[in-house]
Amino acid sequence: MDYRIEHDTMGEVKVPADAYWGAQTERSRNNFKIGPEASMPSEIIEAFAYLKKAAAQANSELGVLPTEKMDLIAKACDEILAGKLEGNFPLVIWQTGSGTQSNMNVNEVVANRGHVINGGALTDEAKALHPNDDVNKSQSSNDTFPTAMHIATYKLVVENTIPGIEVLRDTLQAKSEEYSTITKTGRTHFMDATPLTLGQEFSGYVQQLNNGIRALKNALEMVRELALGGTAVGTGLNTPNGYDVLVAEKIAKLTGLPFVTAPNKFEALAAHDAMVEMSGALKRVAVSLMKIGNDIRMLGSGPRCGIGELNLPSNEPGSSIMPGKVNPTQPEALTMVAAQVIGNDTAVSVGGSTGHFELNVFKPMMAYNVLMSARLIGDACVSFNENCAVGIEPNKPMIKQHLENSLMLVTALNTHIGYENAAKIAKKAHAEGKTLREAAVELELLTSEQFDEWVKPEDMVGSLK
Amino acid sequence: MDYRIEHDTMGEVKVPADAYWGAQTERSRNNFKIGPEASMPSEIIEAFAYLKKAAAQANSELGVLPTEKMDLIAKACDEILAGKLEGNFPLVIWQTGSGTQSNMNVNEVVANRGHVINGGALTDEAKALHPNDDVNKSQSSNDTFPTAMHIATYKLVVENTIPGIEVLRDTLQAKSEEYSTITKTGRTHFMDATPLTLGQEFSGYVQQLNNGIRALKNALEMVRELALGGTAVGTGLNTPNGYDVLVAEKIAKLTGLPFVTAPNKFEALAAHDAMVEMSGALKRVAVSLMKIGNDIRMLGSGPRCGIGELNLPSNEPGSSIMPGKVNPTQPEALTMVAAQVIGNDTAVSVGGSTGHFELNVFKPMMAYNVLMSARLIGDACVSFNENCAVGIEPNKPMIKQHLENSLMLVTALNTHIGYENAAKIAKKAHAEGKTLREAAVELELLTSEQFDEWVKPEDMVGSLK
Amino acid sequence: MDYRIEHDTMGEVKVPADAYWGAQTERSRNNFKIGPEASMPSEIIEAFAYLKKAAAQANSELGVLPTEKMDLIAKACDEILAGKLEGNFPLVIWQTGSGTQSNMNVNEVVANRGHVINGGALTDEAKALHPNDDVNKSQSSNDTFPTAMHIATYKLVVENTIPGIEVLRDTLQAKSEEYSTITKTGRTHFMDATPLTLGQEFSGYVQQLNNGIRALKNALEMVRELALGGTAVGTGLNTPNGYDVLVAEKIAKLTGLPFVTAPNKFEALAAHDAMVEMSGALKRVAVSLMKIGNDIRMLGSGPRCGIGELNLPSNEPGSSIMPGKVNPTQPEALTMVAAQVIGNDTAVSVGGSTGHFELNVFKPMMAYNVLMSARLIGDACVSFNENCAVGIEPNKPMIKQHLENSLMLVTALNTHIGYENAAKIAKKAHAEGKTLREAAVELELLTSEQFDEWVKPEDMVGSLK
Amino acid sequence: MDYRIEHDTMGEVKVPADAYWGAQTERSRNNFKIGPEASMPSEIIEAFAYLKKAAAQANSELGVLPTEKMDLIAKACDEILAGKLEGNFPLVIWQTGSGTQSNMNVNEVVANRGHVINGGALTDEAKALHPNDDVNKSQSSNDTFPTAMHIATYKLVVENTIPGIEVLRDTLQAKSEEYSTITKTGRTHFMDATPLTLGQEFSGYVQQLNNGIRALKNALEMVRELALGGTAVGTGLNTPNGYDVLVAEKIAKLTGLPFVTAPNKFEALAAHDAMVEMSGALKRVAVSLMKIGNDIRMLGSGPRCGIGELNLPSNEPGSSIMPGKVNPTQPEALTMVAAQVIGNDTAVSVGGSTGHFELNVFKPMMAYNVLMSARLIGDACVSFNENCAVGIEPNKPMIKQHLENSLMLVTALNTHIGYENAAKIAKKAHAEGKTLREAAVELELLTSEQFDEWVKPEDMVGSLK
Repeated sequence: MDYRIEHDTMGEVKVPADAYWGAQTERSRNNFKIGPEASMPSEIIEAFAYLKKAAAQANSELGVLPTEKMDLIAKACDEILAGKLEGNFPLVIWQTGSGTQSNMNVNEVVANRGHVINGGALTDEAKALHPNDDVNKSQSSNDTFPTAMHIATYKLVVENTIPGIEVLRDTLQAKSEEYSTITKTGRTHFMDATPLTLGQEFSGYVQQLNNGIRALKNALEMVRELALGGTAVGTGLNTPNGYDVLVAEKIAKLTGLPFVTAPNKFEALAAHDAMVEMSGALKRVAVSLMKIGNDIRMLGSGPRCGIGELNLPSNEPGSSIMPGKVNPTQPEALTMVAAQVIGNDTAVSVGGSTGHFELNVFKPMMAYNVLMSARLIGDACVSFNENCAVGIEPNKPMIKQHLENSLMLVTALNTHIGYENAAKIAKKAHAEGKTLREAAVELELLTSEQFDEWVKPEDMVGSLK
Repeated sequence: MDYRIEHDTMGEVKVPADAYWGAQTERSRNNFKIGPEASMPSEIIEAFAYLKKAAAQANSELGVLPTEKMDLIAKACDEILAGKLEGNFPLVIWQTGSGTQSNMNVNEVVANRGHVINGGALTDEAKALHPNDDVNKSQSSNDTFPTAMHIATYKLVVENTIPGIEVLRDTLQAKSEEYSTITKTGRTHFMDATPLTLGQEFSGYVQQLNNGIRALKNALEMVRELALGGTAVGTGLNTPNGYDVLVAEKIAKLTGLPFVTAPNKFEALAAHDAMVEMSGALKRVAVSLMKIGNDIRMLGSGPRCGIGELNLPSNEPGSSIMPGKVNPTQPEALTMVAAQVIGNDTAVSVGGSTGHFELNVFKPMMAYNVLMSARLIGDACVSFNENCAVGIEPNKPMIKQHLENSLMLVTALNTHIGYENAAKIAKKAHAEGKTLREAAVELELLTSEQFDEWVKPEDMVGSLK
Repeated sequence: MDYRIEHDTMGEVKVPADAYWGAQTERSRNNFKIGPEASMPSEIIEAFAYLKKAAAQANSELGVLPTEKMDLIAKACDEILAGKLEGNFPLVIWQTGSGTQSNMNVNEVVANRGHVINGGALTDEAKALHPNDDVNKSQSSNDTFPTAMHIATYKLVVENTIPGIEVLRDTLQAKSEEYSTITKTGRTHFMDATPLTLGQEFSGYVQQLNNGIRALKNALEMVRELALGGTAVGTGLNTPNGYDVLVAEKIAKLTGLPFVTAPNKFEALAAHDAMVEMSGALKRVAVSLMKIGNDIRMLGSGPRCGIGELNLPSNEPGSSIMPGKVNPTQPEALTMVAAQVIGNDTAVSVGGSTGHFELNVFKPMMAYNVLMSARLIGDACVSFNENCAVGIEPNKPMIKQHLENSLMLVTALNTHIGYENAAKIAKKAHAEGKTLREAAVELELLTSEQFDEWVKPEDMVGSLK
Repeated sequence: MDYRIEHDTMGEVKVPADAYWGAQTERSRNNFKIGPEASMPSEIIEAFAYLKKAAAQANSELGVLPTEKMDLIAKACDEILAGKLEGNFPLVIWQTGSGTQSNMNVNEVVANRGHVINGGALTDEAKALHPNDDVNKSQSSNDTFPTAMHIATYKLVVENTIPGIEVLRDTLQAKSEEYSTITKTGRTHFMDATPLTLGQEFSGYVQQLNNGIRALKNALEMVRELALGGTAVGTGLNTPNGYDVLVAEKIAKLTGLPFVTAPNKFEALAAHDAMVEMSGALKRVAVSLMKIGNDIRMLGSGPRCGIGELNLPSNEPGSSIMPGKVNPTQPEALTMVAAQVIGNDTAVSVGGSTGHFELNVFKPMMAYNVLMSARLIGDACVSFNENCAVGIEPNKPMIKQHLENSLMLVTALNTHIGYENAAKIAKKAHAEGKTLREAAVELELLTSEQFDEWVKPEDMVGSLK
């Protein structure tokens, strides 16, 4: 491979000849061979592109960066956002805990690419842009990385996670309305219970998801606060007056998202409780999805030896030895995602609790886990929705059979013949394998006609939504 | 021990003669010998007392319970709330996952105690109140237990957790203002960094706690929704019209807290995501407290071989072999609590994700963990505040010594002699163990007078709060 | 309340007149009002009693403690072990993270009680024993508390946890053999699959528990190593020669358990990875119990609308509104315990990872969680065994019905008529709601007699155990 | 893009023309767009290659597969192992929870590639190998995927994880010996304590890692057991006699690792407690690494305002605004990895506890997390070792200064002038900022000569290792 020589304050480094990155990126590549290359999430790189462009704009507007430099920086950032500089961000999550090396990776790529856009060559001694003095101007890794974390997280949650949940929620809402007159047996403790409608059952899922979206939106209120402007320790050393507010406005404008400057920069650098809170909200959604996924696959269990009240779409051939076997593969993917998000949340909590003094140095790990959770939930909801939820069909004969068999319908007789007598009927039916009607008539507690009049499951489902 | 005979639909049971509980409680005592007796949190029992009284009032107002019975129930509940019936709630957390047995424990105690208040004897065959027909009227364990969980949690969080955090927050806020002019070295990556004030450092803790309180209040919005009125599966079977709204109003009035009926009873029985969300909010606070506790004990480390910038109150004699040793015991208790809350949150997530169909049956375990977390955080904040935070004193000589020694003050010279020259000074000082001033003068890069004029740490702390 | 005056190196303290504890315990009581009183596990206090007695014996044997003092210490310790000094250990878990205050609590109680045994009074100025100089001789909190943790954990795991698991394992093993000829449908992905015997299904549970016991025993190998002899930082300062080995022998003799001195005292004080490992082993068992508990309650689901292949014992009356309802309450307690143990493990991991330099100061929290997990697993296994597992009965008609209905029996035809033809039969049967036999004959792929000859579920269960 | 048509029992599918995968892989690609493509760990694919080759060998040896087919399968598998078929495994983790689709992906690629090796074309109607009938012969996804999990995990742990830990352990062991005479102050509760040697301090880390390796090896004993031969539900349906033992031998031979057939196939399919146990062992190591990483970065804190007893290698330029700043980047990567592994363990526990009946369907998620943990620990240990541990140097002047300043040396005077007098010296020295010697002489409790004679830190470090 061809190399060129780059240098930083520690000396010279050989860098692949056509890579836009520089010495510090290359050092990190060599010093941190932990897990697969380039594992730093692409959402972070993209967020840095917004950030660097916004900082250049703010610096220029405040008179500390020439317009020409701002333009070059902006152009290079736009290329990152357009995906034109892929392959230039080779660093891993498992680097310095401040993310300094990824900040420098972006600084170096923007500076070098800006220089080339300006007509220069990568091997030029003098460059149009300096990674630190220009691209990183009025910034420190300590405030840029948490800012990039927040931009990336906010963006992913509003563009992927919430829309994914909403599309699933809408399907379940429609099903809930569609099934509002399908009365079925309830189940508590896995055991037969009094009836409800299938629509009511689905309405619980809808409520879970709505509450989850609400929790995500609450957490977003913290994530929209940006650390940028705090620089090294939160004091804003080396930033022009008004910079923090202005740069947040620039980022808001570029992204179209309501970012603001954080009210306290010391907290914003030293703690990432906003990320912990977001992770907790994602975990809350995961807990809901685990319930929904489990319910739906269990309601669809069978076809002959399970509950079988729902028919789930059949998307893949069954087992290689068992012809006709269809498995609830989408609920399985969904619940695996839920388990992962619960685990990610523990990692985020551990990282979030271990910041010290003016800086939390678990930043890349925290960002990675929160972004992974946000991505997986959004994607899995869409996948589950398209490939399973929309195609769910009630198995009406099975639902009817279960409902009619359920001994818990006896509850309707309490007000007519008393709890004690009702209990006698249920126990006789259970012990002798009879229907409630048969047991009731044999016990001479009521007539067959009375049974029909009094035991109407559809009257037992109430008016509560 | 003396016994009396009680019976339920499964037959006779021997119960301690003077216990107010009945057959079902006794069965549970015998069937669930798991961990220490009476581990069901007292907050749950107290919440049940509010609930049973409110239900009696609502039932009476809606015409399904005679006033005299309502009065007896109310009196027995008041005695529970006054702590007069302690020892009558012997059940453990590790019972049926619906908490049915604790619901029945309260039903039996209220019924029996109400009967005795009415002039009856525990051994009477006929009783003034029936545990199921009267005390449990218009209720099911499936809606009462989650209601009790929410009442207990809301109450504890607003009466213990948040006030505890606030009292600590207020102390830290006062310290932050008091220390606003104490300039000190910053530390990032545990390494010396540019300066900030001690007040700024403390302001970060204040922001963390304020954000934590905000998260708790967001979660409370979900916890204030009550399942009561859903009965067995969420349909509200066997409740009078308007009962769910009315009984929530009654509970709100009795507790003075803003409870409302849950908008969807199916969700409220089958999922406890509101508890998961509250647990997540408590965990977020725990993460903050871990940071704060760690910072303060590390800033107080020494007295001769650590950082030593804070003097923490000395509350207990030191080590038995090391005279004069003082340990940061309060931060240790605080951080142990934080670790516990993080663990509790995992338990709550597992329980919350494993509900099935119409009922989550991890209720007592979830309640136990959330209440424990809420209690521990509130208590630990108060303890830490009173026995540590209020007595913290800055060790000004040490702070000054560190500040003056810090090589990172060289950053102030960047704008005067350039980054490269500044770096030379810092490196020489570090390599030769000299002061920045000595190194600067020896390198003839500036005069001693210029050093004094340009290197002023108090000018480096910015105006950001 | 009456008080007497006690003092320590920080001055005078008022102590309840008849309490055996002294000044340092009282200070801790006042300084750490976090959660319920006396929450430090009784197993830790008991372990301290063994430890203090053993240390006195070793000190005496090595010539640094007079025999008379050893005798008094031993007598007081025996009283603790006999439960005679209950109420004298009022401290909480949430104290100093080294557990120093509980070590001093025991030292003070042993010293004071020893003095009283010797004929003295609590108010005597001069005492027969000094809590530090005599009871704590050759010890530091830093080596006694981890030693007590290990003694308590080892003892509880071998006396409660493992026997509890074994008794359940034995029941399941017996059931596995008893059910070795009951062929039933298998279920994978919750869906009908090829058959196995009920005995085979249960044999999987047996294997899980056997593997879990193995993991516990592996972890015990680390827990049996004792820190005692390391004193303050692991160097063994102020201990007589040979003390560490001897005192471990004494503890081994007193407890009848194979304790040895830890090979490296620095690790034994600064890290509690042995506790982390034990917690992980307990969590592994919890994971198994969650599976077993879930399977059994789902196999017992119904009675009419579930799987219904097992009848579980009915221990408590059913729902107050649903007569005849029986719930799987023991599996619910078991699975709640499992969730708790998983959460406890997270707390232990956080605490274990946050020790610093020569001391981990999350000791009481770690001990509390590990002991709770060990206790709950042991108790829950016994409860589940006695009140559920032993009474499980196969519901043979339901098992037979499911087996005969299962379309997956078609797999047996693969070798006779080919996979493709077999698939046609299964699909027709499914689509038209017919039996395999009906579909096969209608498709004229085989005769009814051939079906009987070839489709024999009992031949499909293999010879694997 | 060019396509060819493939079909399975559900019909036709368009597949990229030059892809070796077939219809079922393509369906999964389309149905599971969750997270980045091809996220199924490459270690799993590699393990499948060993497995398919071994199964073909066993099938051939047992007479159920022609030798020619075995050869083709073996050749295709060898190409996978040689990395020649990269890009043909596009599936994600978040698919069916049995991993069926990745099993089929391998079956399809091996069949198609085998056919091409045999001279055929991908578009041929008839193929030399059938993915199910030949490549998957005597197998089911249900036993192959867990087998692949175990092969991949065992291999990675013995080839990457343990060697990584060992290389770090060896360095720390060498440092421990090298530093055996460097006496330094101890620190407990972050506070100054009695002295120990730097070698002793490092010996604790060595012990931690040795114990961790032991735990991994214990867990490997379970991981070496293979499910293969259980087929669909554990009964071994459709396998030739002796197959399970033989195929494990073949895998052992091919990998050179001591695999054996699992004693109970029902457990091996339905539960993945062996993976849970391995994850727990990895977490135990992570907990140790968190302690080691934290200690080393805190001992290296400074250079002027921290503890500064260790000099860590400087690998990267410091901050862009703070010249000369060097950060402990390797410990940060190490501790981030530790936090991740702790989180992964939670995910594994949740997945492991949620298997049902004859199959756990969280397999890919569990495999992913365990493999990630194993990889990260191994890589991070090597990175930390090479780029940090080997270059650690004691800062002897700082160590000496701290040691001499430490008030806890006063402990050495206890036996000469008594604890009370020693305490007076320490307190005076602390209050007046004097040395112990100064305070002692001023108090006239001993002479300067006596101080020199009695206070010898190097005599206080004991002989314990």
